[in-house]
Amino acid sequence: MAKNEKKMVDAITSMDEDFAQWYTDIVKKAELIAYTSVKGCMVIRPYGYAIWENIQRILDGMFKETGHVNVNMPMFIPESLLQKEKDHVEGFAPEVAWVTMGGENKLEERLCVRPTSETLFCDHYKDIVHSYRDLPKLYNQWVSVVRWEKTTRPFLRSREFLWQEGHTIHATAQEAIDETERMLNVYAQFCEDALAIPVVKGRKTESDKFAGAVATYAIEALMHDGKALQAGTSHYFGDGFAKAFDIQFADKDNTLKYPHQTSWGMTTRLIGAIIMTHGDNNGLVLPPAVAPIQVVIVPAAMHKEGVLDKAHEIADALTAAGLRVKLDDSENSPGWKFAEYEMKGVPVRVEIGPRDIAANQCVIVTRHNGEKTAVSLDDLAASVQAKLQEVHDGMYAAALENRKNRTFSCTTIDEIRQTLEEKGDGFIEAMWCGDEACEDEVKAQTGAGSRCIPFEQKQLSDKCVCCGKPAKCMVLWGKAY
Amino acid sequence: MAKNEKKMVDAITSMDEDFAQWYTDIVKKAELIAYTSVKGCMVIRPYGYAIWENIQRILDGMFKETGHVNVNMPMFIPESLLQKEKDHVEGFAPEVAWVTMGGENKLEERLCVRPTSETLFCDHYKDIVHSYRDLPKLYNQWVSVVRWEKTTRPFLRSREFLWQEGHTIHATAQEAIDETERMLNVYAQFCEDALAIPVVKGRKTESDKFAGAVATYAIEALMHDGKALQAGTSHYFGDGFAKAFDIQFADKDNTLKYPHQTSWGMTTRLIGAIIMTHGDNNGLVLPPAVAPIQVVIVPAAMHKEGVLDKAHEIADALTAAGLRVKLDDSENSPGWKFAEYEMKGVPVRVEIGPRDIAANQCVIVTRHNGEKTAVSLDDLAASVQAKLQEVHDGMYAAALENRKNRTFSCTTIDEIRQTLEEKGDGFIEAMWCGDEACEDEVKAQTGAGSRCIPFEQKQLSDKCVCCGKPAKCMVLWGKAY
Repeated sequence: MAKNEKKMVDAITSMDEDFAQWYTDIVKKAELIAYTSVKGCMVIRPYGYAIWENIQRILDGMFKETGHVNVNMPMFIPESLLQKEKDHVEGFAPEVAWVTMGGENKLEERLCVRPTSETLFCDHYKDIVHSYRDLPKLYNQWVSVVRWEKTTRPFLRSREFLWQEGHTIHATAQEAIDETERMLNVYAQFCEDALAIPVVKGRKTESDKFAGAVATYAIEALMHDGKALQAGTSHYFGDGFAKAFDIQFADKDNTLKYPHQTSWGMTTRLIGAIIMTHGDNNGLVLPPAVAPIQVVIVPAAMHKEGVLDKAHEIADALTAAGLRVKLDDSENSPGWKFAEYEMKGVPVRVEIGPRDIAANQCVIVTRHNGEKTAVSLDDLAASVQAKLQEVHDGMYAAALENRKNRTFSCTTIDEIRQTLEEKGDGFIEAMWCGDEACEDEVKAQTGAGSRCIPFEQKQLSDKCVCCGKPAKCMVLWGKAY
Repeated sequence: MAKNEKKMVDAITSMDEDFAQWYTDIVKKAELIAYTSVKGCMVIRPYGYAIWENIQRILDGMFKETGHVNVNMPMFIPESLLQKEKDHVEGFAPEVAWVTMGGENKLEERLCVRPTSETLFCDHYKDIVHSYRDLPKLYNQWVSVVRWEKTTRPFLRSREFLWQEGHTIHATAQEAIDETERMLNVYAQFCEDALAIPVVKGRKTESDKFAGAVATYAIEALMHDGKALQAGTSHYFGDGFAKAFDIQFADKDNTLKYPHQTSWGMTTRLIGAIIMTHGDNNGLVLPPAVAPIQVVIVPAAMHKEGVLDKAHEIADALTAAGLRVKLDDSENSPGWKFAEYEMKGVPVRVEIGPRDIAANQCVIVTRHNGEKTAVSLDDLAASVQAKLQEVHDGMYAAALENRKNRTFSCTTIDEIRQTLEEKGDGFIEAMWCGDEACEDEVKAQTGAGSRCIPFEQKQLSDKCVCCGKPAKCMVLWGKAY
């Protein structure tokens, strides 16, 4: 191992030693973020933002394919507007940032910086929804929102974060419920197909619903350390917001009705999910679909005749095939380069040197498992594309395997506690009576809260894991980020 | 004219009668924006936002081609950070929104919502720029900013607006100056190639510079009513910000030096420029490159056998050729549809009916000049693409013609006043001695302020238009939006 290489790798704390420090090391050393003078806020650096741009591009395409269009709402919400829906304001008011001055002047009414935009969309719907012909409206926006969190962590919890928020309004409850489920499925498909992260789809318990929602659905992922992370949520609002904002439409039968609404969101937190699902002690491991660089080409004996020419030829061919490629022809040593792009999680490395060229081949190294394969230079783009698919599948399989190994069924609180102690954190499947007191008790005694009521139910027993009374459903429990 | 069609067209005020009202009518009737409960802020509706998405996509591609990468800075600036550069804070502090409360708690230090992000970028540069190897950094971000304006107009001046802000930092003054000019040229090329808007490139006078800049360059466009609109600016900062923020780097010669910076921005104001450059009394007229719908297909005698099939076939073929196409097969009358898509500024309309089909042709109508052409259905996509290029060229030529007809050379203040009175608003070319008092005097007496010192100079006379002393340069004057 070259000296530089050693130094670089040493700079990351081992994930087994201190997972939280390992995470912080990665976000800094892979140059995803930088801290700022603005407490609880971060700079998303070019490499981190390029991951977000890829996430945006793919998700936005999926939204448009399902009939949604983008809009842009103001970032400010007047206090009186925020207060129109009772549950909603109770949920959000304690954690918003308030603008009270414009220039030198005190505002007549203070404005909060949007923590989410239901109230703004409702204010707009009231203007534009009058007839069944105006429905549905299938809207989305890509913006940042602010929640005045006390403790923050890059990507996972920050005072400002980037997200998309979908907002839709429909003539009937059924259409709105269908939309809520459709978008949850879009989210799950995105996590699996683009991020190689398996997720559990389910419904949140009453106590864990979004402020103002009738029902909240979520996808839950299990991180490498056995903690759960909510990767996306989709909310069904019924006609509660419509009533609070007095939005009515003339239906086909000429009667006035209240429309039904949904909202759904995913955030830059997904980048945290990628890090903690796939990362290892050498750094980041990026799923090919969202990696800013999919293939890095590292020439060996770079100054020998023909090597750089061949490396450029390969780079051009792979780029022409639609891949995101970087050829590193800097004067740094190959060892330094290996460590650098491992840290940055580039899925595939192509090594090419004089002996490879003589044999009309190159060596492909896959980041997630370190495997090396000699591959013919003939039709290399096709080989690399196949390899990237292999990488995606391998990463997904490993994440699924980790989740399987860390998912346990329990029938008593003692068993939950014992399992978490002996086997470490993970998902716990256990039955529940539906009583909030039991939900709280499980969390108090084990540290594992209810993550969701999975759509795919199992009948583990007929008794609540807490009180022993008849169980209504199986809940997925876990310690959460 | 069908009844619906009549009604729709009547709904816009004539631009000759009341240009301001005509503008307001278009932004509302073409569904570009909606007003909100948030004073001075607007909703950008799907049709308006789709124009912005096209602008973003093209500009972002041009930024990346010139080596820039995207990042994301916090939206808040602590007051102490804003105050670090004296001129900058003086320019912006009077018009910022202040966050003073987080949840229930008063903040220890108030935060402004960014009006622009130089201070945040400097704070970040200080962290990451240490050596000449770290330079240049060529950054951009797509965000919204807030300036607490008293009077607002959709797209032209609002309290929150969307923009991109480029921020770069370089080892030498010359590199930074080159960057400032390069991005001004990118802006000018974008306006001409994508928006069909001719612009004048020039330098702002001292009194009109960006707060904290050594030099500000701008592109100025002339609207249909003869008023000037600044479409983009590019600033050279020298090392003033670096000194204020104590950013230094070790150069190749091992001495510590201050780096040189630039910033440059374009905003949603461009949508206002499109409206006021190309629009007419039937509504919006969109340049093909940014039109959300480039081609609308309106079938005639829609329920006759084969018409809708043929219309779909055409739509599919045009879509496959990469065009943005809408087939309107709703039950509205063709006349209503004509008026609707004229209002929305769709560049090309394809009319297809039974007689057209029999003749293996369709009729193409171009929005900007109302011309109708019968075109063979064979290889229609190529014909439509050629037509869209014609539309772009025709729109650009018409805008250039308007600017030529409204640009006047004057040698005295009286002549400026008389010209503006007799011929209406426009650009005035006149010589200037470089004295701010003369600049102010011209504006006070004629209403026309200095827009820029054009790069392409003419020697109209050797005397200042105001004081008669020796002239230093030709200034472009105009009444501004």
